[in-house]
Amino acid sequence: MNFKISKKELLDALNKAVRAISTTTPLPSLSGIKLEIKKDSITLISSDSNISIKTVLTNNDKEVFTVQEEGDIVIDSRYILEIVRKIDSDAITFETIDGTLIRIYGGNSEFKLNCMRAEEYPEINFAVNGEPFKFETEKFFDIIDETAFACSDKDTRPILTGVNFKAEDGKLYVNATDSYRLASKTVDVDKDLDFNITIPSVYLNDVYHSLSLEKEIEIAIDNQKISFIFDDSLIQTRLLDDIFPDVSKLIPTNLLQKVTVKSRDLLNALDRTSFIKSDGKNIVKLSINEKEIDITSSNQIGSSYENIDVISFEGQPFEISCSGKYLVDAIKAVGSDEVTLSFSGELKPFIVTNKEDDSIIQLISPVRTYK
Amino acid sequence: MNFKISKKELLDALNKAVRAISTTTPLPSLSGIKLEIKKDSITLISSDSNISIKTVLTNNDKEVFTVQEEGDIVIDSRYILEIVRKIDSDAITFETIDGTLIRIYGGNSEFKLNCMRAEEYPEINFAVNGEPFKFETEKFFDIIDETAFACSDKDTRPILTGVNFKAEDGKLYVNATDSYRLASKTVDVDKDLDFNITIPSVYLNDVYHSLSLEKEIEIAIDNQKISFIFDDSLIQTRLLDDIFPDVSKLIPTNLLQKVTVKSRDLLNALDRTSFIKSDGKNIVKLSINEKEIDITSSNQIGSSYENIDVISFEGQPFEISCSGKYLVDAIKAVGSDEVTLSFSGELKPFIVTNKEDDSIIQLISPVRTYK
Repeated sequence: MNFKISKKELLDALNKAVRAISTTTPLPSLSGIKLEIKKDSITLISSDSNISIKTVLTNNDKEVFTVQEEGDIVIDSRYILEIVRKIDSDAITFETIDGTLIRIYGGNSEFKLNCMRAEEYPEINFAVNGEPFKFETEKFFDIIDETAFACSDKDTRPILTGVNFKAEDGKLYVNATDSYRLASKTVDVDKDLDFNITIPSVYLNDVYHSLSLEKEIEIAIDNQKISFIFDDSLIQTRLLDDIFPDVSKLIPTNLLQKVTVKSRDLLNALDRTSFIKSDGKNIVKLSINEKEIDITSSNQIGSSYENIDVISFEGQPFEISCSGKYLVDAIKAVGSDEVTLSFSGELKPFIVTNKEDDSIIQLISPVRTYK
Repeated sequence: MNFKISKKELLDALNKAVRAISTTTPLPSLSGIKLEIKKDSITLISSDSNISIKTVLTNNDKEVFTVQEEGDIVIDSRYILEIVRKIDSDAITFETIDGTLIRIYGGNSEFKLNCMRAEEYPEINFAVNGEPFKFETEKFFDIIDETAFACSDKDTRPILTGVNFKAEDGKLYVNATDSYRLASKTVDVDKDLDFNITIPSVYLNDVYHSLSLEKEIEIAIDNQKISFIFDDSLIQTRLLDDIFPDVSKLIPTNLLQKVTVKSRDLLNALDRTSFIKSDGKNIVKLSINEKEIDITSSNQIGSSYENIDVISFEGQPFEISCSGKYLVDAIKAVGSDEVTLSFSGELKPFIVTNKEDDSIIQLISPVRTYK
């Protein structure tokens, strides 16, 4: 193996590749990145067996590399990333010295590394099953921003650690819930699309951060995995195979009160009280009437009292308590200057919405408090 | 107790005060800040019994506060800092509701806090013994930057966790060592000064970050403690009472080789190899001749080779190994465009200096390596 490659292009590909590296992999070779060097392509492969990433660099658009000798090798991901990041040169040369000992050099720097043979790396099945369809990258980013935070971070019900994507009749319904709150987004899609899958949020996050700012990505889905195809890369993650709960009936329709406030006012007030915690949780009580919302929070050390103006109010004055953090997350996800909270009873979940965009609904369960 | 105070001035004083708060204090009241409210002064006191800080706010220069009712109270340091930081108002009012329950309000926010009685706070002796002398703040900052990093972070020899300040015959000798390296600084001071003290580096760091940018501070020293007086604050820290080793004889005078390079070149080369570690340490071997320094570093996974140009060289070519991190720290402390390394043998400590400023010397012990 002997090739010279642009530092920038290699570093971009490596930064993508390391997203699939787990520090706790039981298989030593999976802590490495596999490089397949061919005359006219350089392929980087990484996987933690749940998420796998393949990037194929070519010289089609511009001269990225020159290959003197073909070959395959597996290089420790931390070492190759540090070396390529730190070499002070536009081009970096890799060459085999002897078996798995390789030399990497550029500028005034030279590194020798003991690597692993490509044969030790497991075969990763990158077959793309299912018909690929195009999806706007921007829209994909929005969906993740608006839903993924609401997933459960506990393994007690594994299906809730994922974001559910269900396409039918020209609509894509995206839902995430930890059973105390629900983030729900609906967008229009092609009428032919028909699937119901749940993607682990931790891998969805890796995909999110790997995506470039291309206008569109291609997505292909089969029963076991989802493929994201963009630029010169293919990312595949496994799906959760349990059935996602039917959350459509959770959203209340019989709304008794509806209050609209400036998002900024409510966020600032909640932020000021956020340090008042009991058992690690910041619980706020909202007392709502046609003029104002009083926000109180207390624990054994102290209490806080905030007061914000209401823009509009329908219904009877009342009180409800909930997690301050969940309310902050929901307002941020809804993302607009004004935010509307709608209630159907003191002990029933309430919804957080935005007048201008009805595609996104955040649902929060109240907390019972004792005076 | 009832007073109204400028948020900015109070926040500045609180940020200073929390530097003396330890999270692991055995005495509950020491997790609080003591406030003494008098008609014409507001005093903040904090201490972890090793370092103590007192700040006295007055209305002498400008109107900072108005006091309706005098009183003393001890407020949990985290809560008061969060509350004052977050209240959205230029002025904040504190008032006693009932016993130790106080109300803090400003803007649209109101907090109630359960505090501690001032009687529960231990008596802190802030008496300043010893004749105070003035010291340039800038010079004090430089001294700390150039020496304190070299202190030991282990408790095996407690005296080495401090920076030694010894004044005699118009010179102040400042030394810090972990027994593998030594940072040594000498500055001119008033001839009358005569002391030999060792200040724990952790408290010196607190003092460093509390100092304002006034031109001068006042310092007073007695056998047990050192006082720093500036602005409206007094900081006292205890001294280490063991005898600091005599390090003056460690600095070699019989220099066989002397090499000068660009600091930036050497720092960059060392940075590139810094990830190659054995047992958590990055050991570099320097091979020096009249033209260049070769820097090699290796462990079981790989090796690096760097090469930098020499500006000047005296003596015979030779090799020496040392901690890459210690060398980086020393070059940064010496702080100049060019740096000179002077050697007196392969297994003897070598010195790192800067042609333009002979007040600062860094000494590093070599490491024995096996090929």
